[in-house]
Amino acid sequence: MSVSRREILLRIGSTAGLGATYGAMQLLGLAVGTPAKAADFALPRAPGKGPSVVVLGAGIAGLVSAYELEQAGYRVTLLEARDRIAGRSWTMRGQERIVMDGRADQRASFSPGLYFNAGPARLPSHHHVILGYARKFGVALEPFVNANRSASWDFNGKVVKGGRMLFDFQSRLGELIAKAIDRKALDDVMPAEELKEFRQFLDFYAGLGKDGRVVPNPRDGYRTLPGGYDHPAEFYDPLTLREALPSRAAVLPHIFEQITDMQATMMQPVGGMDRIAHAIHDALRSKARLGEPVSAIRREGDGVRIEHKSGVTRADYCVCALPTTTLSKIPSDFAPAKAAALKDVPYLGSCKVAFEAPRFWERDDHVYGGLAWTDRPNENVIYPSHGLGSARGVLVGAYVAGWTRQDNPDAFAKLPVAEQIRLSRESVEALHPGRGQLLASPVAVDWGLVPWSYGVGAVGPDFDDTAPGVRRGPRYTELTRPEGPIVFAGEHLSYVGLWQESAATSAHEAVALIATMAAEKRVTAG
Amino acid sequence: MSVSRREILLRIGSTAGLGATYGAMQLLGLAVGTPAKAADFALPRAPGKGPSVVVLGAGIAGLVSAYELEQAGYRVTLLEARDRIAGRSWTMRGQERIVMDGRADQRASFSPGLYFNAGPARLPSHHHVILGYARKFGVALEPFVNANRSASWDFNGKVVKGGRMLFDFQSRLGELIAKAIDRKALDDVMPAEELKEFRQFLDFYAGLGKDGRVVPNPRDGYRTLPGGYDHPAEFYDPLTLREALPSRAAVLPHIFEQITDMQATMMQPVGGMDRIAHAIHDALRSKARLGEPVSAIRREGDGVRIEHKSGVTRADYCVCALPTTTLSKIPSDFAPAKAAALKDVPYLGSCKVAFEAPRFWERDDHVYGGLAWTDRPNENVIYPSHGLGSARGVLVGAYVAGWTRQDNPDAFAKLPVAEQIRLSRESVEALHPGRGQLLASPVAVDWGLVPWSYGVGAVGPDFDDTAPGVRRGPRYTELTRPEGPIVFAGEHLSYVGLWQESAATSAHEAVALIATMAAEKRVTAG
Repeated sequence: MSVSRREILLRIGSTAGLGATYGAMQLLGLAVGTPAKAADFALPRAPGKGPSVVVLGAGIAGLVSAYELEQAGYRVTLLEARDRIAGRSWTMRGQERIVMDGRADQRASFSPGLYFNAGPARLPSHHHVILGYARKFGVALEPFVNANRSASWDFNGKVVKGGRMLFDFQSRLGELIAKAIDRKALDDVMPAEELKEFRQFLDFYAGLGKDGRVVPNPRDGYRTLPGGYDHPAEFYDPLTLREALPSRAAVLPHIFEQITDMQATMMQPVGGMDRIAHAIHDALRSKARLGEPVSAIRREGDGVRIEHKSGVTRADYCVCALPTTTLSKIPSDFAPAKAAALKDVPYLGSCKVAFEAPRFWERDDHVYGGLAWTDRPNENVIYPSHGLGSARGVLVGAYVAGWTRQDNPDAFAKLPVAEQIRLSRESVEALHPGRGQLLASPVAVDWGLVPWSYGVGAVGPDFDDTAPGVRRGPRYTELTRPEGPIVFAGEHLSYVGLWQESAATSAHEAVALIATMAAEKRVTAG
Repeated sequence: MSVSRREILLRIGSTAGLGATYGAMQLLGLAVGTPAKAADFALPRAPGKGPSVVVLGAGIAGLVSAYELEQAGYRVTLLEARDRIAGRSWTMRGQERIVMDGRADQRASFSPGLYFNAGPARLPSHHHVILGYARKFGVALEPFVNANRSASWDFNGKVVKGGRMLFDFQSRLGELIAKAIDRKALDDVMPAEELKEFRQFLDFYAGLGKDGRVVPNPRDGYRTLPGGYDHPAEFYDPLTLREALPSRAAVLPHIFEQITDMQATMMQPVGGMDRIAHAIHDALRSKARLGEPVSAIRREGDGVRIEHKSGVTRADYCVCALPTTTLSKIPSDFAPAKAAALKDVPYLGSCKVAFEAPRFWERDDHVYGGLAWTDRPNENVIYPSHGLGSARGVLVGAYVAGWTRQDNPDAFAKLPVAEQIRLSRESVEALHPGRGQLLASPVAVDWGLVPWSYGVGAVGPDFDDTAPGVRRGPRYTELTRPEGPIVFAGEHLSYVGLWQESAATSAHEAVALIATMAAEKRVTAG
């Protein structure tokens, strides 16, 4: 009986891929959490005295792996190359040092209480796994302002409030449909009575005047604000379609809020993005061993032998939660297919520049959080979503990832740090005339040069693609396959895309694989 | 010289309205803040030992008036009918009692730390005057989530995520324009090359397939969430235009975020809306005298005599910062035109129902803040924007103001409190099946029945109208006119509309009038 259970597992696993293995495990009552229930994820209790597992990397994937394994009774060793945990979920504070390959070291100089999320800065509300850990460990969350109609767009050198761009574009679309309906070009799309009603709605929706053209509308915001008594507002003239969509570069901001993972409500942990990583780490019995870069990953008998800075760690299993940029360079016994796939993962080398400043954007320009968009080299400016109304804040003056410029992030990354800072300041000056000089304490992070990361995450059709019905290619599938007792986790191993949620969900799959293997061993033994 | 200054002021004031008086004051160096600079508002120093001013009402208008007058050296008495300050900016906590005319008293039972903003709940980011007071007095602000794509719309009994409704509607609009372009109906709207490019953009913007029709798109959110390894997402089918705009009732939610004062970024004070009122009050030397309803407003010599509960207060000037619902019933010496105008202001009798509950909307349905819309009698559900990820929160189960139902707020207001609560719970149950039973500690506030307020504010074309270029009618203008030494303030006396900003901006105008009169007196004396 016990042999037949094992045979079922192995047979299904080898012929039909991992998904089928899980299906079989569920049938056999060995089920671990599925994504729909991942917030309540729990591994089955480890057999015996608890197999040993060495986890490589104390980013989100490694921390989640270590935590879930410990909870289920596994004995965990967590190795981390850096002198801090959290990996790419890097929150910079105070006088923190920034080290990049081939660049002079920088040192931050942020006032007490201020921070800069150099890595991920947002949590979409459907990322229930990472949010589940925040909830479990009492990490307070607050809204991240991802859409702000008062923040400006700066395209072709013309600075216009984002609300005008978006709403006037919508109005112009409505105007075009109204015109087409009035020209009887859409008579067949719905019943006549319904079409008449819809045409009336368009007048309202698009703010059309009697001649079917867009007229000035308060939704564009105010040229002069209204006041008490005899102070009516003054309004803007509506933008033309061309003005509202001035170039290809402006396409992204027009659809940005449609992106599934960018939709309201977005959130951030109170106090910095690394609070979640730290909360998970705080819950570990065996804390991460810092400053322990791995120099070899070997199989030894049924287990693994990890060579790292201070010595050698042997274990029954290994969770390899390192980015492929680093993992592909570590000597290992991986099969040629895995080694080849590891070398073939494109990472995005995104850049951010941050400043500390008095909150002129709030006081003078009524911009509280949110994003400014530009076709300048800095692409994106991010205003702080927290501490609203307080004296000072950290302004992200550049978030460069190819949002509006196809030559980025490469083109920006090639510039000297001083030039990156100058261009970011210049963009802020264009958005807030006369205020560029108030930006102080600049730091510039080029993730392509950050040791151990060398990029913010895997991109391309096999990695951050979420097109409906598309399944990822063999390169992705190969990377999800274990190497004997070694399993893999990281944001590149999830359909979620380039997010902490990916790291967490991949970790669940990875540790579930270990649970499967441990169960198999018990079955074999029994 | 001094007489000529006075003559200029009086002549301009009497012939050209108040706006012209301010213009003249600016020319004469007596300028007070104009709306564009209102955040830095400051009255000129009061003459002599400081004239005395009695301020009626300790809502925002009265508090701002009292503060600015005190700052300029006037001697202020602030009278308030209720046993609390803040007027309609009412934040309910703990075991607070709710008193309404003709209804049994209710008592709240909210857990420590929780609150319910029974009145205003949002601060638009361009409301720089009220935000200026928050900044000046260190009132911390946080985002108010006014748009959440994960919150649902419930129209015609069909519950659909708001993101699907909005995005699919946009897509269907794009689809219609693409169709019209493909049918050559819009060949003349732009140059051929531009039209071709725009048509390509529509494919992208509206998510159109090869046949020009909307195809499933991740922006609709996920039918099944993506996960790690071999867990791709599953997607929704796009809604039809009819499904995305199912009835006239659904029009408001489709244009809600276009409303100038509802646009991101919206904010709230940390700890409750009344924090701003309390901060202004804390800054007063002469605190409000509570429990002092006014029974008569009389002119006496050059000054005023106010009869109130505990006695009589005489002063050189009076700021009357009461809603017209209450003011119109107080015996006074006002001119017939003023008395008639005061009786002729329509107030909105909006209702809110609130519950305390565990945050099932966050944990189970990934809804963090924001609004749900429905054509049920409760119209609008508001999820708390703060304390995200914590255990419990206050859910506004009904915000009834005619958002989606033309028969409201009257129809809802006529229902017994128990029925208001039942209908609100039923709506939440429809949005979150099985969770209605978790709603506890209900309270229902019908502002039309709240003593001293009798409504949330003045509505109609003369009061909350912001149509471009429209100037308000004689009824509004009459209400802004002083009665000798008595000036008027309140949210009904501003072009801002139904907001705390209106109260604050009207207060600036009112106290500026007193400063003008005081300056005139000095000029006459000199």
